[in-house]
Amino acid sequence: MNWRRVLFGRPLKSAEETGRQVVVWQGLSVLAPDALSSVAYGTQEILIVLSTASVAALWFSLPISGVLVLLLAFLVFNYRQIIAAYPNGGGAYVIGRDTLGPWSGVVAGSALLIDYTLTVAVSVTAGVAALVSAFPFLLHWTVELSVLFTILIMVVNLRGVKESAALFTGPTYLFILMVLIMAVWGLLEVDPTAKPVHDFFAPSSLTYVGPVIILRSFSSGSSALTGIEAISNGVPIFQHPSQRRARATLLLLGLLLGSMFLGTSLVAYRLGIVPNNQVTVLQQISGRLFGHGVFYYLLSFVTMAILAIAANTSFAGFPQLASIMARDQWMPRMFLSRGDRLVYQNGIIVLGSVAILLIVAFGGNTNRLIPLYAVGVYMSFTIALISLVKKRMRNGGPGRVTTIITASLGAFLTSAVVLISVISKFTEGAWIVVVAIPLMISALRAIRRHYQGVADYLRLSDLSAKPESKKLVVVVPMASINRMSMATISTALSMKPDELIVLNIATSAEREKLITERWKEWSPDPSIQFVSIRSQYRSVLRPMVRYIDHLTNLFAKGRVVVVIPELVVGKSWQNVLHNHMAFTLEAILVFRRQVSVTVVPYHLHEP
Amino acid sequence: MNWRRVLFGRPLKSAEETGRQVVVWQGLSVLAPDALSSVAYGTQEILIVLSTASVAALWFSLPISGVLVLLLAFLVFNYRQIIAAYPNGGGAYVIGRDTLGPWSGVVAGSALLIDYTLTVAVSVTAGVAALVSAFPFLLHWTVELSVLFTILIMVVNLRGVKESAALFTGPTYLFILMVLIMAVWGLLEVDPTAKPVHDFFAPSSLTYVGPVIILRSFSSGSSALTGIEAISNGVPIFQHPSQRRARATLLLLGLLLGSMFLGTSLVAYRLGIVPNNQVTVLQQISGRLFGHGVFYYLLSFVTMAILAIAANTSFAGFPQLASIMARDQWMPRMFLSRGDRLVYQNGIIVLGSVAILLIVAFGGNTNRLIPLYAVGVYMSFTIALISLVKKRMRNGGPGRVTTIITASLGAFLTSAVVLISVISKFTEGAWIVVVAIPLMISALRAIRRHYQGVADYLRLSDLSAKPESKKLVVVVPMASINRMSMATISTALSMKPDELIVLNIATSAEREKLITERWKEWSPDPSIQFVSIRSQYRSVLRPMVRYIDHLTNLFAKGRVVVVIPELVVGKSWQNVLHNHMAFTLEAILVFRRQVSVTVVPYHLHEP
Repeated sequence: MNWRRVLFGRPLKSAEETGRQVVVWQGLSVLAPDALSSVAYGTQEILIVLSTASVAALWFSLPISGVLVLLLAFLVFNYRQIIAAYPNGGGAYVIGRDTLGPWSGVVAGSALLIDYTLTVAVSVTAGVAALVSAFPFLLHWTVELSVLFTILIMVVNLRGVKESAALFTGPTYLFILMVLIMAVWGLLEVDPTAKPVHDFFAPSSLTYVGPVIILRSFSSGSSALTGIEAISNGVPIFQHPSQRRARATLLLLGLLLGSMFLGTSLVAYRLGIVPNNQVTVLQQISGRLFGHGVFYYLLSFVTMAILAIAANTSFAGFPQLASIMARDQWMPRMFLSRGDRLVYQNGIIVLGSVAILLIVAFGGNTNRLIPLYAVGVYMSFTIALISLVKKRMRNGGPGRVTTIITASLGAFLTSAVVLISVISKFTEGAWIVVVAIPLMISALRAIRRHYQGVADYLRLSDLSAKPESKKLVVVVPMASINRMSMATISTALSMKPDELIVLNIATSAEREKLITERWKEWSPDPSIQFVSIRSQYRSVLRPMVRYIDHLTNLFAKGRVVVVIPELVVGKSWQNVLHNHMAFTLEAILVFRRQVSVTVVPYHLHEP
Repeated sequence: MNWRRVLFGRPLKSAEETGRQVVVWQGLSVLAPDALSSVAYGTQEILIVLSTASVAALWFSLPISGVLVLLLAFLVFNYRQIIAAYPNGGGAYVIGRDTLGPWSGVVAGSALLIDYTLTVAVSVTAGVAALVSAFPFLLHWTVELSVLFTILIMVVNLRGVKESAALFTGPTYLFILMVLIMAVWGLLEVDPTAKPVHDFFAPSSLTYVGPVIILRSFSSGSSALTGIEAISNGVPIFQHPSQRRARATLLLLGLLLGSMFLGTSLVAYRLGIVPNNQVTVLQQISGRLFGHGVFYYLLSFVTMAILAIAANTSFAGFPQLASIMARDQWMPRMFLSRGDRLVYQNGIIVLGSVAILLIVAFGGNTNRLIPLYAVGVYMSFTIALISLVKKRMRNGGPGRVTTIITASLGAFLTSAVVLISVISKFTEGAWIVVVAIPLMISALRAIRRHYQGVADYLRLSDLSAKPESKKLVVVVPMASINRMSMATISTALSMKPDELIVLNIATSAEREKLITERWKEWSPDPSIQFVSIRSQYRSVLRPMVRYIDHLTNLFAKGRVVVVIPELVVGKSWQNVLHNHMAFTLEAILVFRRQVSVTVVPYHLHEP
């Protein structure tokens, strides 16, 4: 267990759990990295799609970014209402479940579980892309690096991340600062050394670009707004008055994210940045403005760091959501169990493993994962906003009508983004989500149905039913008479069975004769019945199981217990030398009714 | 079980075993393919080594082949004596064991087990090389094809090959015929179209070639003589008089192998064949003599076929030897068990798997496996010949002195080949065998020591010792009161224990209170003791095991049986939804003394 302790830390008692209480500036660094880090790839995704049309088409990144910032403002406004309406947070699953009913919760939950997984994959690969931009010799190792970072984040989370939350503040604010510096500098610098310099309002050569490209580009860019829901999910972690602090944090996030994203888009256009596979757009901007100096390399590391923190957010969110859904019996029970370090280790392991599979399957290419991404996020936005509408329609309060109107409009807009993403990017991968979410929902339904079926089946409604002793038939399979069989028969005798049968399966007539004679010579106990069966097919198991089946028919009202020894050897390689009949027999007989198997360990050496 | 029946055929009763009895011409096709097929790569291996020096060095293939044919004649002479001395056959392991003692047997056995494995790998890859020569587009799939053929031969052998022995005759004799035609045609054809034509006795430009190259080339070529021991191993399969028939077969083999091998070497030199990676030497000769017509493609298939048959010989030899050695307790007992089709399936599976590993590890390249090959074969030759010397020294008989002298000389020569191979090819892979054989021997020794230790430990020498009933403490772990726990407690009650403890591990105070109250309400049986333990670390298993350990200390003279239910679900995916505590607990408790675990299956749906 020593390597486990080094890797994951000492076990924590349940009582050691404490809540962390944060104020606005801390809350931003804990809950906002997912949203803020989207700046690292949002503009780039817009440009990548547009550049498939032509370089001149890049101008459209300006109006698209403008529309997205308006959408952001609208979402921030609405989510401030959600914070007011749901002081306990909980995210779209809990909100949808409690306001609209279980099925809305399940739809949101499915979308969110898929999105958490995609967030990990997208953030880690985008982080590695930032690193590779600065250190091009790493290009060949993109997939390996991404997998490595995912495992690293997984291990950190299995330790429990609480202590390290303080570590997040530095990279988060540094990232904000560096991106804002780049935005301001890139816009104010009158005579940038880089060429060509575009004029914002008089594009030199504007070409016609089809609506599909525009919509695709918009849908890719919409990934820049993902993660803003995190603050409304996490209201309880703020210090009193938590709702006010949360709303302030959300407003701050909206302002920062809006200016960083818009700034990046404007500067990228002004500097005529064209996306490529080697260097990210953010790094290109930094290189053009400040050269390949300290700023350039620092930005690469800080981007990597904030994206790792964003991935880390999912490692908190997914296991939490999976455990809430497991409590509601929509997810396997294993997501409920918390390990030594007070974390939901199964959720962490499943999330990390699926993310690694995605990274490998998509060759570590962020861009190819983005189409999968926006659909689910905006679906959960929609459900949260519809919940808000319904809740405000039910309950009164000041500003009721305004909220209902704005939230309805918000829900309309976010569902429009879902539709745009699905349609415009259907063939490019969005179909996977369209298939995955219904599959996920039907899986969740099957899980819940199973659990409820089991609960119904096992329920002991009539407490007057009592356990009672039955006629006990014990069978001891025995291959030869030795100290191990003696110990096994002793255990069988201790059960005071009504019938005790020692069963020998002989593969040849000589062996049968030999053991029968030796048994007579030994004659251990008059109550024991010795049965020997000749196997015609050399298999020992099959005649044994057949005989036990015969016994269960014979004693249909009783219990048959097979008592069988298992030789426990001193060194693990020696296990190869024995046949482990006990476990094999048990694996077969578990599918028989009324037959239990008792494995009696027989240890080879005295301690 | 249906797919098993289609793939492997119906189960056979032990009584269905029959011996096959062959005459000389059949014996040749059953026992000689291993030896005969060596012609497919023997000459080529000699040429490959020489060509590393220079093209002119290829002349040395003539004296080297000459020396090898002399060695062959000598080995045939000696093995005819071995057939006379050991009418029951059995190979170097049995001969060495019975004449020189167990350790000589083990050395020969280790060498042979390794060689059988190498034979499969070398033969299959050589066969695929023959196929690839005719169909160059398969070159990229060499490894995959080799693995596929190995699996195919494995499956055929798991079915049992007896019926198909008749199939071997055609390819074997066709291969002999085609190689002999090529040899005769290639030597008689006065004006071959191919150039350059070498004159045997006046090499145009003979260069100096270092002794290491010559010895390496000789050692590679010595692989052409491997397999001739098969006839002496299989004496009992011949019809009466079996020894005379076996000796005749061996003589025939010697004549055929000698002329085929020498013919190939002479013709290859005469036609100036230079080995390459795409087309085998045999196919090059055939192409030069008869063009790329029917003969060329037929030869490719026939070569593939005889090499597959040669690999097949190992699939008979390895499991047979492994089972004999398992009976002597040198090998794991699993090699003794014969499956439904009367074959030693574990030997077949282990052989096939290791051969596949070798093929993959060496990239499907025969040539790189050859250095590993000759060492073991000639080691077992040596042991067989020394055994012959010792046996003839002990027992008299006519021709005693001649045999002793020739066999001693033979042992000297074969051990010289071992030394030459090890030294000249040490860095090229022969070191692997030098490491593998001692490792193998020490593994076999450890296995035998373990089995003997177990037998000593388990032996019941005093038959007056009888099994006796002990005080029985039964523990039933219970998470909640339901029909499953009721059934489990019923089974526990049926064992009429002296103490029956129902054990609850509570992860929270509320749950503990709840179940304790419900237990009181139910109050199933006054004899049952209800124990509840609070887990501080959320783990259920650890406090449970600790409590059981405490009980075993308390009742050191008694037996503790843990009776635990296992929910058996209807569909296998549903297993993910449950924690299978029963098997986990069993896997932990098997390492405790005096604790047995009874798994009580509880089936979810009525049948």
